Amino acid sequence: MIGRLNHVAIAVPDLEAAVATYRDTLGAEVSAVVAQPEHGVNTVFVLLPNTKVELLGVLGENSPIAKFLERNPDGGIHHLCYEVDDIRAARDRLVAAGARVLGSGEPRIGAHGKPVLFLHPKDFLGTLVELEQA
Amino acid sequence: MIGRLNHVAIAVPDLEAAVATYRDTLGAEVSAVVAQPEHGVNTVFVLLPNTKVELLGVLGENSPIAKFLERNPDGGIHHLCYEVDDIRAARDRLVAAGARVLGSGEPRIGAHGKPVLFLHPKDFLGTLVELEQA
Repeated sequence: MIGRLNHVAIAVPDLEAAVATYRDTLGAEVSAVVAQPEHGVNTVFVLLPNTKVELLGVLGENSPIAKFLERNPDGGIHHLCYEVDDIRAARDRLVAAGARVLGSGEPRIGAHGKPVLFLHPKDFLGTLVELEQA
Repeated sequence: MIGRLNHVAIAVPDLEAAVATYRDTLGAEVSAVVAQPEHGVNTVFVLLPNTKVELLGVLGENSPIAKFLERNPDGGIHHLCYEVDDIRAARDRLVAAGARVLGSGEPRIGAHGKPVLFLHPKDFLGTLVELEQA
């Protein structure tokens, strides 16, 4: 069912410093900063040959990564995003298998303009999993 | 400098249950279990179209993931592995930039039979980074 690893998301306390780490120290190609006010994050994409790393910085008062950064002040891997062909079919299969979908259970439009869902970390090896319709 | 994301490694408390999660619930192709006694882990590869997820279970008394699992009893993402063309050149560049290489600083042969190094999480956004010579 799951297809490509779309991205690995890393929440960071200082987005400019994180960009410098990936661009200058690790020598990767990085995008400009994209503000996503409807998602409460600023994002930078690290463009690798086969996938992306998404650096997430806090934006605004109710950022969904704020609590994570309180627990992980150096930053850390926040989630993995896998692509699926049909997000509602994927959701139905997962729910039938007993997995918990976060929120209402209905896909919403994610940071790439495509329908996404998040799955409960306790059901996926301590890892927050995002599914994105490819 | 960094190239492909070779794999995302997830440390898990129960490897058979983790295999079931990825194979049956998420519908991915998974390898057989490979014991790596010299690395203190059992490994299973989840084969995605563009990269791999490596599931790591404890093997033996001194497994390098045992402490991680004490802190993360549900499991969690343990490290990211990026490919580099020349691991010693990469190491020298990173050290010159002030980054810390774990252990002796000399590459050792990793779980795929290729030279690897690990970088200090505090220097890489709270993320343990493995470099593997491609």
